[in-house]
Amino acid sequence: MKLLRVGTAGSERPALLDAEGVLRDLSGVVPDIDGALLADDDALGRVRAAADSGELPVLDGEGLRIGPPLARIGKIVCIGLNYHDHARETGAEPPAEPVIFFKAADTVVGPNDTVLVPRGSAKTDWEVELAVVIGRTARYLGSAEEALGHVAGYAVAHDVSEREFQIERGGTWDKGKNCETFNPLGPWLVTADEVPDPQDLSLKLWVNDELKQDGTTAEQIFPVAEVVRYVSQFMTLYPGDVINTGTPAGVAMGRPEPKPYLRAGDVVELEIEGLGRQRQQLKDA
Amino acid sequence: MKLLRVGTAGSERPALLDAEGVLRDLSGVVPDIDGALLADDDALGRVRAAADSGELPVLDGEGLRIGPPLARIGKIVCIGLNYHDHARETGAEPPAEPVIFFKAADTVVGPNDTVLVPRGSAKTDWEVELAVVIGRTARYLGSAEEALGHVAGYAVAHDVSEREFQIERGGTWDKGKNCETFNPLGPWLVTADEVPDPQDLSLKLWVNDELKQDGTTAEQIFPVAEVVRYVSQFMTLYPGDVINTGTPAGVAMGRPEPKPYLRAGDVVELEIEGLGRQRQQLKDA
Repeated sequence: MKLLRVGTAGSERPALLDAEGVLRDLSGVVPDIDGALLADDDALGRVRAAADSGELPVLDGEGLRIGPPLARIGKIVCIGLNYHDHARETGAEPPAEPVIFFKAADTVVGPNDTVLVPRGSAKTDWEVELAVVIGRTARYLGSAEEALGHVAGYAVAHDVSEREFQIERGGTWDKGKNCETFNPLGPWLVTADEVPDPQDLSLKLWVNDELKQDGTTAEQIFPVAEVVRYVSQFMTLYPGDVINTGTPAGVAMGRPEPKPYLRAGDVVELEIEGLGRQRQQLKDA
Repeated sequence: MKLLRVGTAGSERPALLDAEGVLRDLSGVVPDIDGALLADDDALGRVRAAADSGELPVLDGEGLRIGPPLARIGKIVCIGLNYHDHARETGAEPPAEPVIFFKAADTVVGPNDTVLVPRGSAKTDWEVELAVVIGRTARYLGSAEEALGHVAGYAVAHDVSEREFQIERGGTWDKGKNCETFNPLGPWLVTADEVPDPQDLSLKLWVNDELKQDGTTAEQIFPVAEVVRYVSQFMTLYPGDVINTGTPAGVAMGRPEPKPYLRAGDVVELEIEGLGRQRQQLKDA
């Protein structure tokens, strides 16, 4: 299923995109799309039955804002330098084990919402990423094999990053990863049954119609299952948590000077195979 | 006011400790203690009036668990190496600007709840910290002077840290800061009007009755007001967010070998002047 949330920010209603691409209202079936729903097999079964019935009310998508496809996100765990090609372009050695940093859930906006260039920023950068949405509590998982059973679904994430704040201002990467609007998510939460192989997805990102990132999750140093297993050794993952699994090559930081960092007026578009497409215009904060 | 939440984990009710030290039930006045309450002057006024009336129902504290004093915490921003004496003991230069890392809100437990030594941990360490609770949205604050007006109150926080995970396993500090139960908070959220000078508070921590940390917030490199101003340049702080403002000298990592890291069975007690006392027993995860 392709689950989404539509409406004005903070007042989104649950919806789904059916097999024919028709937008349908889920608000009569479940109150929202969040970790509680993803952990509840009965409720998910009701959503699936309603989807299969073909009788859900049709929504007019014209002019309707798409919000993030998940409400009440717990934490967002991010994996750094997780693509061979991206590690190469940044001049970093491929990490021996996953690099973890955090984004706050309050950085999440809808897939087509405005992204703000922070005040004082000269190095706002783009990163298309496969987001993994957790559906079952994961704590000290014993193997990568069992990890995928804790994944509810997948989405497109834009891990917007301010490189000076991230790298040149002391401390950890978190300083450049948590600016307002820095995590567009969606359009859809695609349930895991529709993503048979998360290691075989193409990821693309354009800036002002120019293709900048053109990667595949096959290049991930640590695949999704290993990432979930690994993270669960250091922290407990709960339903409604999200993992941003890293970005492929092609970011501004990896390019020759003058590096083409984002500025107000730029338009970024992102797409992951089967997970939909985002489009954000940049404005000054 | 000293606000707190009492009852079993996940089902706490709001309460306050009145001027005579009597525990009183607030559940007839407000549904809970959270960011929404702290941002709502009318609701806070009702709490204050109820407290002053002396007519709130008395609660029998005997055997009653104390939960974290804040529900629905947004993000927890942590400041690293923020005490002159702690920077010295770790051999680090005092940072030129605040070091920021994150703890997830799901690491928060009550002040006297069990703390779990993570599986595979050999270096679980203690850190007593002054926690700042945000009451008003803070975004690009222009001065430290205006920052304190965005602070709703203060609490004791235990920033439990696994040093191997934090420092020796690649990536950022977050990997050693987000293990389950790693942020005991409370007992009280003391409103800012009762903390006339946040830079004049003594902080103490004992392990198995031995005093390990004995510091003062006067040693903070970046005082609370400057921390709030600084953080607001990189991310928006919302009501219900928490800032852990760093720890003074005396952690296990700063001691000679063999460093006395925490093990199952140890008991840690923490106290900040006017903000109350915590006591946790360590167990294996």
